[in-house]
Amino acid sequence: MRLTTLCYLLRDGEALMLYRNKKAADPNGGKWIGVGGGLEAGESPEDCLLREVREETGLTLTRWRFRGLVTFVSDAWPTEYMHLFTADGFSGEPGDCAEGELRWVPFGEIPSLPLWEGDRIFLRLLAEERPFFSLKLVYRGDALAEAALDGRRLPPEAWR
Amino acid sequence: MRLTTLCYLLRDGEALMLYRNKKAADPNGGKWIGVGGGLEAGESPEDCLLREVREETGLTLTRWRFRGLVTFVSDAWPTEYMHLFTADGFSGEPGDCAEGELRWVPFGEIPSLPLWEGDRIFLRLLAEERPFFSLKLVYRGDALAEAALDGRRLPPEAWR
Repeated sequence: MRLTTLCYLLRDGEALMLYRNKKAADPNGGKWIGVGGGLEAGESPEDCLLREVREETGLTLTRWRFRGLVTFVSDAWPTEYMHLFTADGFSGEPGDCAEGELRWVPFGEIPSLPLWEGDRIFLRLLAEERPFFSLKLVYRGDALAEAALDGRRLPPEAWR
Repeated sequence: MRLTTLCYLLRDGEALMLYRNKKAADPNGGKWIGVGGGLEAGESPEDCLLREVREETGLTLTRWRFRGLVTFVSDAWPTEYMHLFTADGFSGEPGDCAEGELRWVPFGEIPSLPLWEGDRIFLRLLAEERPFFSLKLVYRGDALAEAALDGRRLPPEAWR
């Protein structure tokens, strides 16, 4: 299994999105996601969050919120537990990112980007200001096969 | 690293506590904790919660809240990420538990039980109805050496 963080930096109706187009054999290749990465030994989710945002963007977070935990189960990858954050306080200006292209994207344009199917679910939960949530997403290949919110199965019509 | 759940079942001003006195070489031996255990392959925190509560108490949860994530770092054990729940809806009557003695304990008596030092911090956060929190606890042996709440260090006078 793998523990990760993902963060959407927010300012003035825009989110900082990362277009994953730089790493060979990137499981996220061609998709737009937030910034983040894997927890290192002894790190809390926040330790990882602050380090990864600094490494990938050059920015230092000053205000953040832990918004949810996403359990990704896949037939192709080890189970991943992703700690999901938003941040609206930071200092510095974004630099280059080794993992892809960083771009501020207006909230309204995000749904039309190439995204993972399940990301649309948690992006909607974030937009709705839902209190802390636990979302389980089961993938078969690139396709979302099952979803559960706070331990209760979401019917496919709720997310398709 | 190790992923676990811990749950305090609540009813009428009491919590269901587990006195760990049955397993040999139990790292929790002699301490009172909630019920719970380790996540199995492909489980979300809620999957594990429901299974462990059923296995350890015979009860089926019908209502629960995900209250916090606790990162335990220790010089003696692998880092543990513990998903902390409370539950106030369940069906059935508690049975015997293979891991210790189950007892309903009035909230006011819990602080005088033998507890892990850091457990007192998150029990207080639960009692204060703090919204979802992320608590990092660093142990040296049985002694709490550092604590951080939502990514910010807690001064020792806040928890000693």
